[in-house]
Amino acid sequence: MDLPQLTENEVFMAFASYTTIILSKMMLMSTATAFYRLTRKVFANPEDCAQFGKGENAKKYLRTDDRVERVRRAHLNDLENIVPFLGIGLLYSLSDPDLSTALLHFRLFVGARIYHTIAYLTPLPQPNRALAFFVGYGVTFSMAYHLLKTRLYL
Amino acid sequence: MDLPQLTENEVFMAFASYTTIILSKMMLMSTATAFYRLTRKVFANPEDCAQFGKGENAKKYLRTDDRVERVRRAHLNDLENIVPFLGIGLLYSLSDPDLSTALLHFRLFVGARIYHTIAYLTPLPQPNRALAFFVGYGVTFSMAYHLLKTRLYL
Amino acid sequence: MDLPQLTENEVFMAFASYTTIILSKMMLMSTATAFYRLTRKVFANPEDCAQFGKGENAKKYLRTDDRVERVRRAHLNDLENIVPFLGIGLLYSLSDPDLSTALLHFRLFVGARIYHTIAYLTPLPQPNRALAFFVGYGVTFSMAYHLLKTRLYL
Repeated sequence: MDLPQLTENEVFMAFASYTTIILSKMMLMSTATAFYRLTRKVFANPEDCAQFGKGENAKKYLRTDDRVERVRRAHLNDLENIVPFLGIGLLYSLSDPDLSTALLHFRLFVGARIYHTIAYLTPLPQPNRALAFFVGYGVTFSMAYHLLKTRLYL
Repeated sequence: MDLPQLTENEVFMAFASYTTIILSKMMLMSTATAFYRLTRKVFANPEDCAQFGKGENAKKYLRTDDRVERVRRAHLNDLENIVPFLGIGLLYSLSDPDLSTALLHFRLFVGARIYHTIAYLTPLPQPNRALAFFVGYGVTFSMAYHLLKTRLYL
Repeated sequence: MDLPQLTENEVFMAFASYTTIILSKMMLMSTATAFYRLTRKVFANPEDCAQFGKGENAKKYLRTDDRVERVRRAHLNDLENIVPFLGIGLLYSLSDPDLSTALLHFRLFVGARIYHTIAYLTPLPQPNRALAFFVGYGVTFSMAYHLLKTRLYL
């Protein structure tokens, strides 16, 4: 049986589209980490650098690198912020919000998180990254406030 | 079109409320990290401490701090435990559980995670934090068990 | 009121089952970390090793350990990959996909992530872990592509 309620709900379909985009962007951080690890020969596991040498010779690649650590911090920051958006945004989408208000929230969040990644990886001078962070943060709290104000059930 | 099925479902609305609360709490961990980084001048990125000095003078703020690392560990522990609650709890809520049983699960989880944060940041002596962790952990496994027992489809 | 739409939807119930399994597996990583921390006496917090000695004597257990760090990396990799599966997979399940195609996606992802954990913790030589990672990664992108192709609403 199909689900006409959800696939015909415009807010839900918009949430699905924007969430898919921002989660795909987050997944690209894994590729960025792998790219820098391989091109800079910087690894966290002995088995990963076995191809570059044997025994003691391989161990020198078990190190950290500023560029790799920067991508990993950006990735973790994504996780910390996209998980609340995923949970709160889903419940907000199902709470029958106004379509244009919901679209504004989703677009601001996705734009802010993409700009956050650009600001983190370039890196751009502060407060670029801080502003991008707070826009995404504010959008999520705004949805949480809307949810708790209209639909609280404890 | 609206979604009467979900917004009139008491278990789902309770899940939405408790999830929004615990995800908002998790987001406050970012603010706590930022607060300690700024008051203690402890940064991970060169561009973040540019305002405190130039060149070599700013580099001394690129360091780690016990307090900041503690908040970051508490934040990561939240992520590791709230993500399973989010996924399993959503599916559990949609599997038509008994309302009072569901409320007990949600309240225990949210209470345990708030107590976990207090125990981690104070810090309280063990086993305060360990007990808080295991209550939240047990609640999530209890919902997973209920789901797999009644609704398994592989 | 109940939710016949969702609990009678085979794709959704399959998603619920596989997601519950893989999130439960991810939660076991916490237990693995705790096991290695306790058996190897390797702790991150002073209050955790208070039982093994007082003052300076306890501080020697505040250290890192290859085995513990390996489990933590595997856990974080799980988080980074299971969160997108959770979000994209849920929306994909609700977008009325073909049942056998959906089951193939869910089974491949769950199998790949379990094999990833085995390859990480044993550890197996590369490219075992890399292949497991890319199978799970590809499955998630395949669902994202299907979603954006058929249901895009921006």
